[in-house]
Amino acid sequence: MGHFLGSALRGTFFVLFGLWWSVRYPLRYLRRKGNAESQPSYGAQRVEAFEGAVKAFFALAGILVEQFVPAGPHLQLYSPEAHGWTDLTRWHYTTIYLFFLLSGIVDVVSHSPLKLIHFSCRFLLLAGLLFCFCDYSDAALDHHLHSLLAMAIFAGALCALLEVFLRDHIILEIFRTSSFLLQGSWFWQIGFVLSPPWGGPGWDQTDRSNFAFLTMCFCWHYAGALAVLAANSAASRWYVGERGVVGGSQCHT
Amino acid sequence: MGHFLGSALRGTFFVLFGLWWSVRYPLRYLRRKGNAESQPSYGAQRVEAFEGAVKAFFALAGILVEQFVPAGPHLQLYSPEAHGWTDLTRWHYTTIYLFFLLSGIVDVVSHSPLKLIHFSCRFLLLAGLLFCFCDYSDAALDHHLHSLLAMAIFAGALCALLEVFLRDHIILEIFRTSSFLLQGSWFWQIGFVLSPPWGGPGWDQTDRSNFAFLTMCFCWHYAGALAVLAANSAASRWYVGERGVVGGSQCHT
Amino acid sequence: MGHFLGSALRGTFFVLFGLWWSVRYPLRYLRRKGNAESQPSYGAQRVEAFEGAVKAFFALAGILVEQFVPAGPHLQLYSPEAHGWTDLTRWHYTTIYLFFLLSGIVDVVSHSPLKLIHFSCRFLLLAGLLFCFCDYSDAALDHHLHSLLAMAIFAGALCALLEVFLRDHIILEIFRTSSFLLQGSWFWQIGFVLSPPWGGPGWDQTDRSNFAFLTMCFCWHYAGALAVLAANSAASRWYVGERGVVGGSQCHT
Amino acid sequence: MGHFLGSALRGTFFVLFGLWWSVRYPLRYLRRKGNAESQPSYGAQRVEAFEGAVKAFFALAGILVEQFVPAGPHLQLYSPEAHGWTDLTRWHYTTIYLFFLLSGIVDVVSHSPLKLIHFSCRFLLLAGLLFCFCDYSDAALDHHLHSLLAMAIFAGALCALLEVFLRDHIILEIFRTSSFLLQGSWFWQIGFVLSPPWGGPGWDQTDRSNFAFLTMCFCWHYAGALAVLAANSAASRWYVGERGVVGGSQCHT
Repeated sequence: MGHFLGSALRGTFFVLFGLWWSVRYPLRYLRRKGNAESQPSYGAQRVEAFEGAVKAFFALAGILVEQFVPAGPHLQLYSPEAHGWTDLTRWHYTTIYLFFLLSGIVDVVSHSPLKLIHFSCRFLLLAGLLFCFCDYSDAALDHHLHSLLAMAIFAGALCALLEVFLRDHIILEIFRTSSFLLQGSWFWQIGFVLSPPWGGPGWDQTDRSNFAFLTMCFCWHYAGALAVLAANSAASRWYVGERGVVGGSQCHT
Repeated sequence: MGHFLGSALRGTFFVLFGLWWSVRYPLRYLRRKGNAESQPSYGAQRVEAFEGAVKAFFALAGILVEQFVPAGPHLQLYSPEAHGWTDLTRWHYTTIYLFFLLSGIVDVVSHSPLKLIHFSCRFLLLAGLLFCFCDYSDAALDHHLHSLLAMAIFAGALCALLEVFLRDHIILEIFRTSSFLLQGSWFWQIGFVLSPPWGGPGWDQTDRSNFAFLTMCFCWHYAGALAVLAANSAASRWYVGERGVVGGSQCHT
Repeated sequence: MGHFLGSALRGTFFVLFGLWWSVRYPLRYLRRKGNAESQPSYGAQRVEAFEGAVKAFFALAGILVEQFVPAGPHLQLYSPEAHGWTDLTRWHYTTIYLFFLLSGIVDVVSHSPLKLIHFSCRFLLLAGLLFCFCDYSDAALDHHLHSLLAMAIFAGALCALLEVFLRDHIILEIFRTSSFLLQGSWFWQIGFVLSPPWGGPGWDQTDRSNFAFLTMCFCWHYAGALAVLAANSAASRWYVGERGVVGGSQCHT
Repeated sequence: MGHFLGSALRGTFFVLFGLWWSVRYPLRYLRRKGNAESQPSYGAQRVEAFEGAVKAFFALAGILVEQFVPAGPHLQLYSPEAHGWTDLTRWHYTTIYLFFLLSGIVDVVSHSPLKLIHFSCRFLLLAGLLFCFCDYSDAALDHHLHSLLAMAIFAGALCALLEVFLRDHIILEIFRTSSFLLQGSWFWQIGFVLSPPWGGPGWDQTDRSNFAFLTMCFCWHYAGALAVLAANSAASRWYVGERGVVGGSQCHT
C-alpha cells in the first residue's frame, strides 16, 4: 500500500507538470506567432520563476515524504546495527527530488548570467534521473517496468539536451511534455502492477506474456499522452482564437 | 500459411509506400529545383492529405485483418477461461496499425497549426513501431530476424526525427524511403523463413550459419532497395526532362 | 597463411585509401583557403571520378580474389551435397567489396542529379560494412578483434553520415581518413594475431591479458594513424607553401 | 596503498584541470560579452599554449610515475620469464597519459593550420581514454566503478566532439568542465573504495547494496561538481563586475 502511494505521488507529480506544459507551450507559441516582434516579456519571466518555485516546493514535499514516512530512513544513510545501507530505494528517490529541488531553485534565482546554468541543470537533472534507474535488479518484471520508464526519461533527457542548443523550439517542448506525461502515467502503472492498492500480491513476475503485454501497454500510454497533448493544443488554439491574440494580461505566459 | 499471409501483407504495405515515395520525392525535388521560387502549392497539400487517407485506410484494413481472421483475438485482450492474454503478437501488430491510423488521420486533418503534431507523430509512430519489436524471444532465429527488422525501423525513425528539424531535406527523404523498402522486403523474407508458403516447417532455428546468411541477405535487400531507388530517381528525372519542368497539372506532387 | 594474406590485402586496401585521402584533403583545403572564391574545378571532378574508378577496380579485384582462391566458394552459395552454406565468411567479404564496387561506380557516373545518391551510398556502404561484422562468435579473441574493428568502422560511418549534411567539412574528412587508416592497420593486426604468416597457431584465445593488451594496442594504432595524418598534413602544407597557392595544374585535387 | 596514491594522483590531475577551466571559461565568456567586437587576443593564445605545456608536463610526470614506481613495469611490456604481459593496468594509464602528452604538445605548437588537428586530438584523446576502460572485468564492484567513470568520460568526449563543430560554445565548455570535475572526484572515490588509505581490504565486492549506494553517490558527485561550477561562475562574475570589463592585462584569458 505504501509502495502504491509513493508511486502514485511520483506519477501525479510528473503528470501535473506535463499537463501544465501541454497548455503553456502551445499558448506561448501561438501568442509569439501572433505578435512575432515581441520579446519574452516580464510576465513570462515571472511565470518561469513561479514554475520553479512550485517545482522546488513539490520536490521538498517529496523529500520529506520519502524520508519521514513511518517506514522511511529518517535521514539515516548507514545503520550501524544492521551493518548495511538503510532502504536505498527511498534514498534514490530522495536524490531525484533533490535534483528537482536544485533545478527549481536555479529556475527561481536565474537571471541572465545564470541562464546557462539553468539550461545545463535541466539536462543534468534528467540525466541524473535516468541514471538512478540503471541498476534495479530485484525481480524480472520490476526490472522490465523500470527500464521502460528509463526509456521515457531518456527521451526527455535527449530533448532537454537538444533544447540547450535550440532554445524555445516548440517541437522539442512538445516532445518533452509528452515524455513527462508518459513518465507520470507509467508511474501509476508501475504502482498498479507491483503493489495494487486493493492489497493483492502484484502481478506474476515470471509470466513472459506479462512482459509483452506491458510493452504494448507502454505504447498505449504513449498514444494517450499524445492524445492529451493534441486536445490541449487544440483547446489552447481555440482559446487564443476566441480571446484574440492580444487578449488579457492575466495569462502572459 | 496464415503467418506467411500476415507477413506478406505487412511487407506489401511497406513496399507500396516505399515505391510511392521513391517516385514522389525525386519528382518534387526536381520540380522545386526547376522553379525555385514556388511555394508548396495547393496540389502538394492535396497529395499529402490523399496519402494520409490511403495510409489510414490501409491501417484500418490491417487492424481488421489482424483482429478478425479466424485465429485472431476478435478484440478480446484477456481471456478469462485461459487466465492469460490472448495472442499478444496480433495485438502488437494491431497497435502498430493503430499508430499508422492515427498518423494517417493527423495527415488528413493537418492544417498549419497541427503541422508540428504531424511531424512529431511521424516520429513517434516509428519509435513506437521500433519499440514493439524489442522483446521477441520465442526462438533464436526469430529473434535475429526481428532485430534486423528493428534496425531498419530504427534507421527510419532516426530519419524521421531529423526531418522534424530539417524539413523537406531530399537526402533524409531518400534515406527514409530506402528504409521503408527494406522493411517491406524484409517482412517478405521473414514470411519465407519462418513459415514458407509451401507449407514446410521453416528454417532450422539453431543452425548458426543461417544467422550469418540472413545477416548478409539483409545487406543484399539493402542494396536492392538502393537499386530500386536509383532506378526510380533516374526515371523521374527522365520524365521531368521529357515533359519539361512546368509539365502537366495532373502530377502536381 | 591464406587467412593472413586475405587480411593483409584488406588492410592494404584501406591503408592505401587512407594515405591517399590524408594527402588529398589537406591539399584541397589549403588550396581552397588560398583562393576562396574558386568553385570546385573540373580537375577536382576528374580526380573524384578517377578515385571512384580505382575504388571499383580494387573492389572487383577483391571480389575475384575472395571468390576464386583455391579454397574459395567459386560463386556457389549453397552446396547441395553438404546441405549447408559454403564459406559464409568469404561471402561476407564479397558483399563488402560489392558495396565498394557500387560506391565506386556511383562515384564515376555521378553528375549533379546523382550527387545525393553518391553521398547516401558512401554512408550506406559503411553502414553495411559495419553490419557484416555484427555476429562473429567463433572464438572469444576473434570476436574481440572484430568488435574493435567494428568500432573503427562505426566511427567512419558516423563521419560519412555527418558529411551528408556538412559537405566538404575538413575536420570530418580528417576523422574519416583516420578511421580508414585505423581500419587498415587493424586488419594487418588481425592477420598477425589470428593466423601469423610464420605459420604458428595464432594467439591464445582464452588468455584474458591478451584482450587487455589488444585493446591498448588499438589505441596505439589510433595514435599512429593520427601521427601519419599530422605528418602528411604538415608535408602538404609545406608543399603548398613552397609551390605557391596557384602552383601547377598537375595536382588540381 | 600504492593503488590509492595512483588513483588520488589521477583524481587530482582531473580536478585541477576542472577547477582551472571552471574559472577560465566563465571569465572568458563574460569578457567576450563585455567587448563583443574583440578577437581572441594574443594573450588568449599564450594562455592556451601555457595550458598545453602544463598538460604535457603533468602527463609526462604521470607516465614516469606509472612506469617507475617500485612495482611498475619499468617500460617492459612483455616479460619473457613469466610468458605474459607485465602489469597491463599501468600500461593502460601510461597510454592515457601518452594521449594527454600528445594533446598538450599539439596545444603548444598549434598555429592556425594545425588548429583542426588540435580539435580532433581533443576528441580522440577522450575517445581513447574512454576506450581504455571498456574491458575491466576483475571484480564486480571494480567493474561497476569503472563503468560509472566511463560514463563520465563518455559525456566529456561527446562534448569535445560537439565542440569540434560549435567552437567556443559556453554551455559545451561548462559541460566538459563538469565532466572533468566529476572524473577527478570519482577517481578519489575509486581509490577510497578499492584500496582505502588506512589499509583496509576495500569494500565488499559482492554486496548488491554497495552497487546501489555507489550509483547514488555518483549522482551526488555530479551535484557537487555542479555546485563548484556555479560557485566559480558566480565568483568570476563578481570579479569581472568589480574590476570592470577592461580590467587588468594580467588575466587576459
